[in-house]
Amino acid sequence: MKTIFVRSSQGKYAIHIGDRLLGKAGQILTAVLQNSRQKKSLPPKIMILSQRNILTRYGREVSRALRKKGMQVFSHMLPEGEKAKSERELSKIYRVLLRHHFERQDVVLALGGGVVGDVAGYAASTYLRGVPFINIGTTLLAQVDSSIGGKTGINLKEGKNLVGAFYPPKAVLSDTAVLKTLPSREYRASLAEVVKYGMIRDPQLFQLLESRSQQILAKERKILNRVVTACARIKAQVVSRDEKETRGERMILNYGHTFGHAFEQAVGYQGILHGEAVSAGMICAARLACLLGLFSEAGFIRQRELLRRLGLPISIKPHRLKVEALCRAMLHDKKRKGGKLRFVLPDRIGHVVIRDDVPMRLVRQVLVEAGGRV
Amino acid sequence: MKTIFVRSSQGKYAIHIGDRLLGKAGQILTAVLQNSRQKKSLPPKIMILSQRNILTRYGREVSRALRKKGMQVFSHMLPEGEKAKSERELSKIYRVLLRHHFERQDVVLALGGGVVGDVAGYAASTYLRGVPFINIGTTLLAQVDSSIGGKTGINLKEGKNLVGAFYPPKAVLSDTAVLKTLPSREYRASLAEVVKYGMIRDPQLFQLLESRSQQILAKERKILNRVVTACARIKAQVVSRDEKETRGERMILNYGHTFGHAFEQAVGYQGILHGEAVSAGMICAARLACLLGLFSEAGFIRQRELLRRLGLPISIKPHRLKVEALCRAMLHDKKRKGGKLRFVLPDRIGHVVIRDDVPMRLVRQVLVEAGGRV
Repeated sequence: MKTIFVRSSQGKYAIHIGDRLLGKAGQILTAVLQNSRQKKSLPPKIMILSQRNILTRYGREVSRALRKKGMQVFSHMLPEGEKAKSERELSKIYRVLLRHHFERQDVVLALGGGVVGDVAGYAASTYLRGVPFINIGTTLLAQVDSSIGGKTGINLKEGKNLVGAFYPPKAVLSDTAVLKTLPSREYRASLAEVVKYGMIRDPQLFQLLESRSQQILAKERKILNRVVTACARIKAQVVSRDEKETRGERMILNYGHTFGHAFEQAVGYQGILHGEAVSAGMICAARLACLLGLFSEAGFIRQRELLRRLGLPISIKPHRLKVEALCRAMLHDKKRKGGKLRFVLPDRIGHVVIRDDVPMRLVRQVLVEAGGRV
Repeated sequence: MKTIFVRSSQGKYAIHIGDRLLGKAGQILTAVLQNSRQKKSLPPKIMILSQRNILTRYGREVSRALRKKGMQVFSHMLPEGEKAKSERELSKIYRVLLRHHFERQDVVLALGGGVVGDVAGYAASTYLRGVPFINIGTTLLAQVDSSIGGKTGINLKEGKNLVGAFYPPKAVLSDTAVLKTLPSREYRASLAEVVKYGMIRDPQLFQLLESRSQQILAKERKILNRVVTACARIKAQVVSRDEKETRGERMILNYGHTFGHAFEQAVGYQGILHGEAVSAGMICAARLACLLGLFSEAGFIRQRELLRRLGLPISIKPHRLKVEALCRAMLHDKKRKGGKLRFVLPDRIGHVVIRDDVPMRLVRQVLVEAGGRV
């Protein structure tokens, strides 16, 4: 088991990464909660928030591990998909916690992907002004990204993540064995974020992905642990230095996302997974960096080949998206943020810079090259 | 104008207290927001959240002061009373903020009593994971208590303040001139909390209340400023040392409240104001301290006479409450908190101790003495 620490305004917390960690959940939680609880207090209640598939697969193992340590375990099922991140579902979670008389020292535990972690963390942050929160991410995206950094929230009908809180978990558990059961398209899409970490901060990780892409696609145990640990370490470093997204450091995590968000929006979040949009977005960002003379053609090709080998989209052609619509989406986003259109651009593999002076002419050009319709 | 600072995990903020401060809101906000904003950014939007009476009376003055400094001002009216602290009203606030395209740098401003401050602060803490919050308390209770310390939240049908956040404001403004228009029963009830501050921390304040009770009841300007400042200073000290109620220091603020909450619950929050319940609660707590040999009979009488002179209840007889029901309510509350029944008890005027070893026999005795039915 590897352990990585994250600093936050509420103290530091640990990310535990390893193969078959679920069965050790009781042990790990006992240690975590003892530090933050008064002596002689009762063993805590734990509310597992999850979704049907995950709960069916892993609920029993986690519950048993917790009960073995004397904890009282309850569970509540959220609906599938983004629907779980609604005001309605949040309100239901509060009622479930009340019905089981959850108090300030009791624990909310997320068991699932980013959606579950977001709404569970938000419920934990607001119920009784905050109860302890544990995040067990069961997707690659959750393990390398969303479970780390304390961003929690729900969607409103008007848009995603419009309501939320920065609320650090007491601990994050990432059992890499769980990834083996992920649907392969979803798993591959998440590898885009893994490539992102290599591009922004870690040339060794990038090389590892290049040299071991087949083993990674085959989800081999050792390599999976290494990859998840490398990514979690980068995310932990970045959010430790910029917990609340006020210093701009967290912005480098958006590499590929300015374009990617525009792609997702343009297709109405249908038919393209987030990671797939980010993959095509990184192609565009890297190309833009080439046009600005920041990044080498050779670097661009290395990234493109890696994404291709991992089965990720390197073009938006199949989606028949219009270049002008994409530009409008990006500019609208920019206006909303009250600032300039900012791009995270690689100047070498393993390092990025932030630029807010990119001519729209070049943005259009890379969108055309990536397969956008004129 | 007096300025008192509060430390919080998000940095320190100022409480500004003075006569006719509303007209200076623009100046004060400009200074506050400049510190926390990037240079060259647009002047912020301000959303005033308030209730009809207050908005009618003071809305224009505050808006004008803000507009004079170039801010874009909007307002949204909440329903009267605790109804404003509901999930429904919270959801409406999010929609109003979205409709006016409020972004992360824009400001939510509470103009009202504790209810308005609680829900407005909570909306501010969660909209886009937190926007700047300014609290202008227009009641004595808000100015001496609820506007300071960062507790925000809403009620669920199942109980009060079950959902919330610790979210410090960027600034608190307390215009004591506003207090002159308060209904006299409400004003008097809030004086119970003022007496509380004297009892727990400030013998000089207690003496001032004794010697100037008539001027205080007449809301004389100078004395009002002095009283609000003294109370705000104590609250600021306590919450600076125990922001999130984890160290127990904040508990001394509950003097009179263990009994008081039981009284409020027993009457179903009807027919007795919070401050009135606290007044009778302080009678009980002081009596309990006498029975335990902690507090002098003379001290008990001084407190009782002061409360009487301020027109506050010193008995629960009119409410015909049953002693056994009150005990059950207190014990239930205790069970809910997973701990022992704790009392904040005076050992002299200006100082309290915390005791969790009080025999229920004595609790019953003081309830009987205070007019509870056997």
